[in-house]
Amino acid sequence: MPKKRKIDVTSTIRGQAIMEVVMANRILANEGILDALGHVSLRNPENPATFFQARSLSPLEVTKDDILEIDLDGNVVTNAGVKPYGERFIHASILRARADISAVFHGHPLPFIIFSVTGIPIRPVTHVGGFLYQGMPPIYDDYEAGDGMLIRSRNEGDRIAHNLGHYRVQLLRGHGCNIVAENIRALVASAIYLNFNATIQLQALQLGKEPTYLTAEQAREAMEVALFDPLPLDRMWSYWIAKARMNMPDIG
Amino acid sequence: MPKKRKIDVTSTIRGQAIMEVVMANRILANEGILDALGHVSLRNPENPATFFQARSLSPLEVTKDDILEIDLDGNVVTNAGVKPYGERFIHASILRARADISAVFHGHPLPFIIFSVTGIPIRPVTHVGGFLYQGMPPIYDDYEAGDGMLIRSRNEGDRIAHNLGHYRVQLLRGHGCNIVAENIRALVASAIYLNFNATIQLQALQLGKEPTYLTAEQAREAMEVALFDPLPLDRMWSYWIAKARMNMPDIG
Amino acid sequence: MPKKRKIDVTSTIRGQAIMEVVMANRILANEGILDALGHVSLRNPENPATFFQARSLSPLEVTKDDILEIDLDGNVVTNAGVKPYGERFIHASILRARADISAVFHGHPLPFIIFSVTGIPIRPVTHVGGFLYQGMPPIYDDYEAGDGMLIRSRNEGDRIAHNLGHYRVQLLRGHGCNIVAENIRALVASAIYLNFNATIQLQALQLGKEPTYLTAEQAREAMEVALFDPLPLDRMWSYWIAKARMNMPDIG
Amino acid sequence: MPKKRKIDVTSTIRGQAIMEVVMANRILANEGILDALGHVSLRNPENPATFFQARSLSPLEVTKDDILEIDLDGNVVTNAGVKPYGERFIHASILRARADISAVFHGHPLPFIIFSVTGIPIRPVTHVGGFLYQGMPPIYDDYEAGDGMLIRSRNEGDRIAHNLGHYRVQLLRGHGCNIVAENIRALVASAIYLNFNATIQLQALQLGKEPTYLTAEQAREAMEVALFDPLPLDRMWSYWIAKARMNMPDIG
Repeated sequence: MPKKRKIDVTSTIRGQAIMEVVMANRILANEGILDALGHVSLRNPENPATFFQARSLSPLEVTKDDILEIDLDGNVVTNAGVKPYGERFIHASILRARADISAVFHGHPLPFIIFSVTGIPIRPVTHVGGFLYQGMPPIYDDYEAGDGMLIRSRNEGDRIAHNLGHYRVQLLRGHGCNIVAENIRALVASAIYLNFNATIQLQALQLGKEPTYLTAEQAREAMEVALFDPLPLDRMWSYWIAKARMNMPDIG
Repeated sequence: MPKKRKIDVTSTIRGQAIMEVVMANRILANEGILDALGHVSLRNPENPATFFQARSLSPLEVTKDDILEIDLDGNVVTNAGVKPYGERFIHASILRARADISAVFHGHPLPFIIFSVTGIPIRPVTHVGGFLYQGMPPIYDDYEAGDGMLIRSRNEGDRIAHNLGHYRVQLLRGHGCNIVAENIRALVASAIYLNFNATIQLQALQLGKEPTYLTAEQAREAMEVALFDPLPLDRMWSYWIAKARMNMPDIG
Repeated sequence: MPKKRKIDVTSTIRGQAIMEVVMANRILANEGILDALGHVSLRNPENPATFFQARSLSPLEVTKDDILEIDLDGNVVTNAGVKPYGERFIHASILRARADISAVFHGHPLPFIIFSVTGIPIRPVTHVGGFLYQGMPPIYDDYEAGDGMLIRSRNEGDRIAHNLGHYRVQLLRGHGCNIVAENIRALVASAIYLNFNATIQLQALQLGKEPTYLTAEQAREAMEVALFDPLPLDRMWSYWIAKARMNMPDIG
Repeated sequence: MPKKRKIDVTSTIRGQAIMEVVMANRILANEGILDALGHVSLRNPENPATFFQARSLSPLEVTKDDILEIDLDGNVVTNAGVKPYGERFIHASILRARADISAVFHGHPLPFIIFSVTGIPIRPVTHVGGFLYQGMPPIYDDYEAGDGMLIRSRNEGDRIAHNLGHYRVQLLRGHGCNIVAENIRALVASAIYLNFNATIQLQALQLGKEPTYLTAEQAREAMEVALFDPLPLDRMWSYWIAKARMNMPDIG
């Protein structure tokens, strides 16, 4: 385990990455995507072998002083003595396996669990759900006995990462969902609009109607142009922060 | 492209029109009809060849300093250097094609997308949905390849306007909805109550019941008497502003 | 038409009645039962031939200065020159026909409209829906041509009252619902829990299941003991005001 | 009936227990699990023959001065002259019958009533619903004539306790739900996540799909590890209080 050191927020790159993690926590809490449970992580832009994540704390309450630096085996390398999330192994293993992405979401929004227990394929039904272009996300169901359906070991983290494969979205049966993205803004957009897309699809199916889905090409293009391009993405980010600030005056 | 000039808010008519656009943005954000995406426009009452619309910014955050004047080809004629919405062409083309209306809404409320991907005709099920008197709204599905299902050119704006025809409401498959009205208050009322009417219709259909719809005559009359008449419309406008003010103290 | 006079709030009985009407407006707005439209009325405890109701204003905005005194023909007897609700005739006619009740609600909550257009009988499915003990409420559908499905004349008000008969609840097809009660607290409780009961019944039916309903005896008894008795009713009233005060600091 | 005495909040154990009851009330109000009706209780940690519960007041408004001490026959032993809940007998009888638990919830969240009137077995569909490991909860339907479906006597309280048996969850037909737990934090978590689990199950069933449920072993383990273990439970408690504090500044 590396030597522990205090997080240095004077480094601009490091400090900015930490603040993005804080804001992602606040936004996802404010939008009702995360409650007391669930977490996000961002790869350290100055060291791809570590990532930033809050200590064991609800996303609503996270401040910059709560952000830990953790290595890809799940060891906390800063702030020794502070309790990390038991499920940090999800993030460690995925970030180790997927050099193409830098941000990981783990959460339990209601519509995702419905898809995870009915086996109905979640599919892109709107342009803001375009990141589902890869087809039906894998559903993980290989829980370790004795861990209460939580992912609490490096071994199980690795099984999660293996099941995720090259996908952007993964459901955990009866538990929730993991999402990955290139950066934290795209990750937050994916989590919020996956919830939106899933709700639309569920309500359409409750009408007894199979909705028209986006083709894979259309979906991927919509993801790139309508969601992850800086024009819409920066507008969303500014909006989510403005909205969170209405409820959380401590956001500057 | 016309010569750029600063927006002159000392003109009463111009200034009032701009303030109505600001309030429409805030109301639609506060009512949950628009999130970071979506936009409204209002024809310039002093020059029918231009319209007012916010720069690329979430409706929640719009102030009078964010309002641009744009011509009917989609060129920004004021505030050069500020980024407009990529989809302003929806507004430009519709306002060019439809001399009978002065206000345009483009947004993505959840129930509209359900109708757009199931092909179920959205119909008036309540008096406040009376503006649906024209029958099943057209569903646009002729997206430009490479634009991610966004409407980002004059050409596609014109296809949108052609598909809209003489209707008040148009769905965009897997994307959202356009609405037009004679003035911005009627437009905001249409957007809010289309969401309400659509939700009622969906829940009735989820019961496996075909609800009783309004006849065309009854619907049109309800629109005129119960929705767009100044008695109910001014009451609604005052209400929406009072409600928005509870969350947005910067509204005067 | 009686001589107009200013409302005298120094009379304790009169002033208290007016304040209960104000609070009922605020509570129903805060609970999401009424938006800009809809209204409540309370018979004048000192003169059964008049009632108190707000001027044409959204319930959220009503203060004591907005309360009118209106006679049972729908004539405003105070505050001449201030615009009353166009639909005050619903209240006037019902209060004239029903000496057994003193408070009337007219509104458009979403679940009520669903029952009004599907013809499914709304029935008591929970103890707090016990006021539905009388069986399937009448559904009014005899709208005056030219009035946009609004009730804007004494004649149509009388047809409404006739259709209501001895019931506590009446649906208006494609429009909304009228509710009556002995006092304004019981009225507010009926409106809020009718919405609750209707939502439960709809969701049960969406499961394809006919729920177990309360018997008429059980329902009536539940209304008297669990809803309209002062022990629960005063607790509810205090709660609704405490909750409204969180959003409306101008409530004392 | 024991001699009445003032509640002594200087005793640390007693004072802490009372504060936990206050916070449970506020949290359940803030999370929308309890409205004006419904209540929680906690066994006195210094005297297992009494419990703490608010006087007849909505959970939103409860402060430490509103907490009564009540014995297991339902007699108020402190604060004589203050009105207790009519249904305190639910708590008294269950706490008398069940030495294994110390906290009782009684409330009326919408999804629980749906299960209670359709007879569909509520089952664990997610890890946070693991406390449903015991199989289909009993449904009480042996109401006393004349009591409006309320539980207002020691006799009926005892029938409730007998019907509950060794279960953690019990539905009351057309009325609501009782939940028991070892401590008040586990109780609050059970109430909040029972609502969540029930909603997921209902929506899955509305798709016409029988979801995959947790096995009894998996569910019990999930309850112990993922819900009632101090790591997640303390995080939840801190979160619920932080969230309640945003709406209720009087919470310290």
